[in-house]
Amino acid sequence: MTWLKDDERIDYLLADQKRRIIQSPSVFAFSADAVLLAHFTYLPIKKGKIIDLCTGNGVIPLFLSKRSQVEMVGVEIQERLFDMAKRNVSLNGLEEQIKIVHEDLKVVKKQFPHENFDLVTCNPPYFKEGTPDKMNINEHLRLARHEILCDLEDVLKASSQLVKSGGKVSLVHRPERLSDMFHLSAQFKLEPKRIQLVYPKQTKEANMLLIEFVKDGQSGLKVEPPIFIHEENGDYTEEMTRILYGEEGTSTHGAHSEKL
Amino acid sequence: MTWLKDDERIDYLLADQKRRIIQSPSVFAFSADAVLLAHFTYLPIKKGKIIDLCTGNGVIPLFLSKRSQVEMVGVEIQERLFDMAKRNVSLNGLEEQIKIVHEDLKVVKKQFPHENFDLVTCNPPYFKEGTPDKMNINEHLRLARHEILCDLEDVLKASSQLVKSGGKVSLVHRPERLSDMFHLSAQFKLEPKRIQLVYPKQTKEANMLLIEFVKDGQSGLKVEPPIFIHEENGDYTEEMTRILYGEEGTSTHGAHSEKL
Repeated sequence: MTWLKDDERIDYLLADQKRRIIQSPSVFAFSADAVLLAHFTYLPIKKGKIIDLCTGNGVIPLFLSKRSQVEMVGVEIQERLFDMAKRNVSLNGLEEQIKIVHEDLKVVKKQFPHENFDLVTCNPPYFKEGTPDKMNINEHLRLARHEILCDLEDVLKASSQLVKSGGKVSLVHRPERLSDMFHLSAQFKLEPKRIQLVYPKQTKEANMLLIEFVKDGQSGLKVEPPIFIHEENGDYTEEMTRILYGEEGTSTHGAHSEKL
Repeated sequence: MTWLKDDERIDYLLADQKRRIIQSPSVFAFSADAVLLAHFTYLPIKKGKIIDLCTGNGVIPLFLSKRSQVEMVGVEIQERLFDMAKRNVSLNGLEEQIKIVHEDLKVVKKQFPHENFDLVTCNPPYFKEGTPDKMNINEHLRLARHEILCDLEDVLKASSQLVKSGGKVSLVHRPERLSDMFHLSAQFKLEPKRIQLVYPKQTKEANMLLIEFVKDGQSGLKVEPPIFIHEENGDYTEEMTRILYGEEGTSTHGAHSEKL
């Protein structure tokens, strides 16, 4: 079997020498957002079912499968990425655990009419459609980054339809959308329970927001300790190094840092 | 003139050797919340008007008067605290700049029917009425800390009535109320523009939220760099020391730290 198409390459999934991932600079390559969402998410370990929306090349299910044995579904609307995600599942021999579905998240509930997921994860497009300085990229990246095929409301609505009452929805997004997020989530009975802010450096404004909702949850929000990506000198912080590469440290995996 | 009543004492306003403040352990003594709110707040310096709701002993206007020449009003519903705040203004010779009003914030707009403030500040009661483990304190402290005489909705409603379009509202509150805050502020046309989270230590959950709204503002939220109060060993962090005592350092003011 030929694993790779066009400019694709196979990387290790960070420090994980067992899992590998097919990526492409022009189509989809995972970023720190995906790593941090996987790290932030509480998940069922032995029983239950997880669904990942906007799965891209399937990076979130691949990360979560390191910590959990439960069945996972990844949903991707772009045919080219769906195809990459499927190959990633096969490449890692995870066909029994992870199923990739080629579908629009706005209608994906129809495929799971009687299923209620324990956890929904999503690293959705961040930028409002038409944000000018970011539109000058190719179609695949544009659709993955901008709210063209789906927006925050679609993501929260779909999540709410898919998750069971008391189940969790974990997202990564931009901090400037926090207000929108709180207003929209209330419409779909998703109660924000836990947030964590990510700052490029300790002295900079936050540029990433991790947030967990509970469907039909009680009000009451916890703000987790902050995460800083870099030290003032530009090195990864100790914490970020641990999140990226585990306890082993970076020595043999330095090359991966360029992708993030 | 006799400045002090009952168990009151006069403290310096932290490192400020010019400003002094009357406090009482059983009635009202300012805390780190007030210091951090004053530090967080953007304020008009030469022109404009500021109103501080739930002013207590007037600590916020006293702090702000170090950075601004504009007229300020402090509003306090408790007669005993109103009286203390007035004496604090006199003690510092600030009667020309700061006016203290004995009023319920829910109706205070009637006293300023034609005035639109540039800035509203408020360090309101944090705890929902009836929170059991915190109710076992005297009446003055209970009213200052619990949502008995006013709740978050009252505070945001009053702030919105008092502030001009485009003007700012700065609050300190508990992070767990962030969701309530976003829902209520939308009702009163207050757009969250800037937040800052305060953590007791870098590895702990946030326990304080600073938030600035703009009346009729555009959406778009900035999350400022976090503030940590203590190092892991319990010392104040460098930043907190600077906020509390200015550039001079703590050497001669260490005694004040016990209050915070």
